[in-house]
Amino acid sequence: MTITLRAPRRLESHVCGEWVPGAKEGQTLLDAATGDPVATIDSTGIDFAAALDYGRTKAGPKLRAMTFHERAGMLKALGLALMAQKEEFYAESLHTGATRPDGWVDIEGGIGTMLTFASKGRRELPNARVLTDGDVEPLSRDNSFSAQHILSPLQGVAIHINAFNFPVWGMLEKIAPTLLAGVPCLVKPASQTAYLTELVVRRIVETGILPEGALQLVCGSVGDLLDHVTEQDAVTFTGSAHTGRKLKTHPAIVQHSVRFTMEADSLNATILGPDAVAGTPEFDLFVKEVAREMTSKAGQKCTAIRRVIAPRGQVDALIAALRDRLDKTALGLPGDEGTRMGPLASLGQRDEVRARIRELQAVAEIVAGNPDDVRIASGDAGKGAFLNPVLLYADKPFEAAAVHDCEAFGPVSTVMAYDDLDEAVALAARGRGSLVSSVFTDDKDVAERVVLGVAPFHGRVLIGNRASAKTSTGHGSPLAPLVHGGPGRAGGGEEMGGIRGVKHFMQRTAVQGTPRLLSAVTGRWIKGADTQQGTHPFRKSLAELRIGDQLVTAARKVTQEDVEHFANFTGDTFYAHMDSDAAKANPFFDDRVAHGYLIASFAAGLFVEPNPGPVLANYGVDNLRFLTPVYFGDTLQVRLTCKEINPRENAGHGEVRWDCQVTNQKAEVVAQYDVLTMVAKQWPQVS
Amino acid sequence: MTITLRAPRRLESHVCGEWVPGAKEGQTLLDAATGDPVATIDSTGIDFAAALDYGRTKAGPKLRAMTFHERAGMLKALGLALMAQKEEFYAESLHTGATRPDGWVDIEGGIGTMLTFASKGRRELPNARVLTDGDVEPLSRDNSFSAQHILSPLQGVAIHINAFNFPVWGMLEKIAPTLLAGVPCLVKPASQTAYLTELVVRRIVETGILPEGALQLVCGSVGDLLDHVTEQDAVTFTGSAHTGRKLKTHPAIVQHSVRFTMEADSLNATILGPDAVAGTPEFDLFVKEVAREMTSKAGQKCTAIRRVIAPRGQVDALIAALRDRLDKTALGLPGDEGTRMGPLASLGQRDEVRARIRELQAVAEIVAGNPDDVRIASGDAGKGAFLNPVLLYADKPFEAAAVHDCEAFGPVSTVMAYDDLDEAVALAARGRGSLVSSVFTDDKDVAERVVLGVAPFHGRVLIGNRASAKTSTGHGSPLAPLVHGGPGRAGGGEEMGGIRGVKHFMQRTAVQGTPRLLSAVTGRWIKGADTQQGTHPFRKSLAELRIGDQLVTAARKVTQEDVEHFANFTGDTFYAHMDSDAAKANPFFDDRVAHGYLIASFAAGLFVEPNPGPVLANYGVDNLRFLTPVYFGDTLQVRLTCKEINPRENAGHGEVRWDCQVTNQKAEVVAQYDVLTMVAKQWPQVS
Repeated sequence: MTITLRAPRRLESHVCGEWVPGAKEGQTLLDAATGDPVATIDSTGIDFAAALDYGRTKAGPKLRAMTFHERAGMLKALGLALMAQKEEFYAESLHTGATRPDGWVDIEGGIGTMLTFASKGRRELPNARVLTDGDVEPLSRDNSFSAQHILSPLQGVAIHINAFNFPVWGMLEKIAPTLLAGVPCLVKPASQTAYLTELVVRRIVETGILPEGALQLVCGSVGDLLDHVTEQDAVTFTGSAHTGRKLKTHPAIVQHSVRFTMEADSLNATILGPDAVAGTPEFDLFVKEVAREMTSKAGQKCTAIRRVIAPRGQVDALIAALRDRLDKTALGLPGDEGTRMGPLASLGQRDEVRARIRELQAVAEIVAGNPDDVRIASGDAGKGAFLNPVLLYADKPFEAAAVHDCEAFGPVSTVMAYDDLDEAVALAARGRGSLVSSVFTDDKDVAERVVLGVAPFHGRVLIGNRASAKTSTGHGSPLAPLVHGGPGRAGGGEEMGGIRGVKHFMQRTAVQGTPRLLSAVTGRWIKGADTQQGTHPFRKSLAELRIGDQLVTAARKVTQEDVEHFANFTGDTFYAHMDSDAAKANPFFDDRVAHGYLIASFAAGLFVEPNPGPVLANYGVDNLRFLTPVYFGDTLQVRLTCKEINPRENAGHGEVRWDCQVTNQKAEVVAQYDVLTMVAKQWPQVS
Repeated sequence: MTITLRAPRRLESHVCGEWVPGAKEGQTLLDAATGDPVATIDSTGIDFAAALDYGRTKAGPKLRAMTFHERAGMLKALGLALMAQKEEFYAESLHTGATRPDGWVDIEGGIGTMLTFASKGRRELPNARVLTDGDVEPLSRDNSFSAQHILSPLQGVAIHINAFNFPVWGMLEKIAPTLLAGVPCLVKPASQTAYLTELVVRRIVETGILPEGALQLVCGSVGDLLDHVTEQDAVTFTGSAHTGRKLKTHPAIVQHSVRFTMEADSLNATILGPDAVAGTPEFDLFVKEVAREMTSKAGQKCTAIRRVIAPRGQVDALIAALRDRLDKTALGLPGDEGTRMGPLASLGQRDEVRARIRELQAVAEIVAGNPDDVRIASGDAGKGAFLNPVLLYADKPFEAAAVHDCEAFGPVSTVMAYDDLDEAVALAARGRGSLVSSVFTDDKDVAERVVLGVAPFHGRVLIGNRASAKTSTGHGSPLAPLVHGGPGRAGGGEEMGGIRGVKHFMQRTAVQGTPRLLSAVTGRWIKGADTQQGTHPFRKSLAELRIGDQLVTAARKVTQEDVEHFANFTGDTFYAHMDSDAAKANPFFDDRVAHGYLIASFAAGLFVEPNPGPVLANYGVDNLRFLTPVYFGDTLQVRLTCKEINPRENAGHGEVRWDCQVTNQKAEVVAQYDVLTMVAKQWPQVS
């Protein structure tokens, strides 16, 4: 493959609906492998206050006017559009030093994260603008005063300040939950690899899928941007702890209590279980994982394994196996087929990593690799930021502070020995908060002790074993459904985690009031709110149905014959239904009782409208509780109330949730549950 | 009533298991109403690093060894013990200037909050040490790799730095969720009223209910305490924004990403709905609420109403009604029966409030009260910190920055007019983040527009109307089940909110692995984890039952006769079961299908063990989903697996949750749900 020399591209920022270059020529960004100029970057002259205001006033209201499902659909369309253009991104990604597998994590991993949020938004959020959070909290005995927590989108802009190592994923994993929440974004990529982010943003803007102003981009310094943040904005930061702390204590961020999420240094550890001795599948998986984490992306991942904690007796075998693997890792030009590891992102970055290795050498010895002797399969060692993997060993890890403190952001790890499992856990905890830890074991007790031991210090813990060898996504991969972020040194932030990540950009508010008005606010019927009776609600399509539409059924007596008949028919001859003495001996019953399933079946018999109509199916039941025993001779009556209406975006129907309350002749609640149905949008159906 | 003069009490701190006075005499604290010395306070010489270490090493492991239900039981016992001694606290509370109703909020409100957490812990948390968070996230198609989020207690100490206004509630509302989480506390009350907090802590320690070190107290300055915090500690602060910001940016807090929760200034607004004109019940409720919020606790509540937003046409009537009410508010000694409002907490506090009133006067005019003319019904105006209520009116509220910025922490509010509802919302938002807002209306649309409009700026919004007049807990009352805290100026923190508040002191961790090992970590069976077959699991008491105990039933064919029989028996003759043509026209079915309730009933018939045994009752069903239609001739089989075992602390039984999977002859899942049962701890039962 040939690297085409070309004039460096002048990167532009996308603010206030326009692509604008900085006023100055700016910094030149170099190809990691060849040292050739790729782009220049500068943001001088950009009016950051105007950009924030543009996002807040232009895009915010448009995003908030959309439902969660509409926003999810927007993300899906965007993800698919980007996926169709991925090869262009892969080509640009080579300049960063990323091999094709490295690029896959960044590009397809990033787009996949966006698509996962799209899919979770559709499946786990309502097709609404307001999100309720938790159950209704009754605050009065007579049900005249209750509360419901709601979540509403922040009315500001989310500023995402990203690291150089994942120019695509780093942006997409942040903007996907933000946009799904209904909040506009302003992204500031690290300069070093901003050309790739800029290219992706150009393609995003070209699709026209996002409302104008929903995604702005600053290539270059953020200037006085943070001076203009307010209490409705949010700032996330991924990068060095040093910069992170400076931003976190920025006067405007502190003054306005701006939400600040930080993901910084992390000395991630992996632990080899005492059962995982050489020769076991777990030992082999461990060796493979450590080597992969050291070399993938040339070790430039905040989740990479920096500390390798192994039983003392396995250390020699482990080092030998790792040395063997690392020796075979072909270092070279990222576009070459034979290359297994590309260069670091820049020569400056390599100087930095070498300096950290020297710090580590004060307390640990190098057992594989030589930081000063570059051996490459292709490329020019004089121009590219090449560095072969370096493995160290710390004999007294409890006395070697540097191995727990000093993050060499490259293909560098330190092996350390433990004598018992408590020591292994204590060593992992010495990282003082990391993004991720892992343990390789096939032993339940080891898994339990290690995971529960290290959990308070980590945002994610992976257990590796033979059963998940083929399907495990690996120590180093943050996933859209799981939280990403760790306490302490790792920054104390939390990103993604599925819908949790969406809520980071929303304000939780407890709303108190009488059910009638609470219900008006949430668009969801709650007990005590208004009801309307009339036409059987099963005769109403989504176009006609309203929350609060209610059916009060006739009453039906439950007899001994019914219960015995049901028992014999279904085979459910549980003693509480059949044997008076046994039922009386039971702490919950005074005598034989009707089956819970009989109650629910009779209830359906009472509320169902049998003729063909807009109700298409009963697809489930939620939170069914049998609250009062039903004895022979008791009479059942049902009150069925339309509680939630959730039309689907791309279908002729939607979900309707009904509150179903079954009472007896004394008006005691016998059973309480939600009935879930599919209901046509129109009736007769139009397709 | 006579105020007894006595020598000031020397307050002590409770650290490292001992009560210790400061090395110096310290500051003298004066009675708010009489000016008499009450106590002296000093913390010089206390070893704060040792205190933190004591909490971490002595109490942390003991608290973490308890289950949530054991900790909830501990809180309940403590709450009841304190309630029995409340009169002593009321007597001491008089020194702070609090009337009996003021003291009720602080003392019984605080103890009630602790009891609510105890009750929520028992009802909403499992009787376990690890809390799972959210659903299992499947990460592989073959179910060999999944994830589950867990929450584990922080292994440090929670430092609670409290404000002077609620010396009891301020402590109890914070330590209750912290202790329930399993985290030791160190409380630092504001000096001004620390004598009451100290008294309560003495009584708590005397009960011996808490493990040693679980509650430490610092009376006086925190010295170098914060220099010693680590990533496993947490700090909460209630007080002035100025101090809060200083603490938030403390080097050790920033360095270790210590969780920091702040609750500071808040210019809470209340809005009179356009429908709530003079003469309506809502107008009267509004007047009552504003007057109550201004005078209760002499307006020294972070949730008090500072801004009164009313339709322009109602302003005159409103001011007249408020003036009338405020004029009648008898100011005097807090212990006197005729007193409706007590003094401010100190003369210094009064100077402060008077200074703020002067700031407000620059943009608003006083329409009731005179800050410089004290009129009291009892007490010595020369000695007590008395101040009558002051009401202001701002004619141009959008131009009057001070009314939205300047918090006079006393009986002071400003009325302002709005012309339309958008303006009312915009004015409330001008507070730039408040703890609470309220709207008084009986109109659904007004409620919806105002609540959704102001929600992003608030942690709580109350709707007041005639229906909740008697049961409403009021604008100013934070409640244990609801979040307390607001964005922006209010500090950006979140406290309480029921179990949400417990999670603030726990670390969330995504755990990934093969279901077998994941299940070992969480103590909860998940799909794919180990199962054991043998004795019918309904024959096992809690003492014998293990998660993964499984029953695979015989198969049962569903015939047309079964469906028709069930339809006629229950009355559920829904067309999809009875009418082939109508079923075929339905988008979900190819022909007539069996009832969902028939499937669940047959499933129970298949899995139930009929003879008397340890299973006492089926009390409910969760997450029932019908996934594949059942046609005539299909065969059902059930796989029932013990998923969660939750023994009750004070009963002979506990809850068992069973995973119930119903499949057809093609091994397709027809229905999936959780069956909830009560199971005896022993069988035969011992009582």
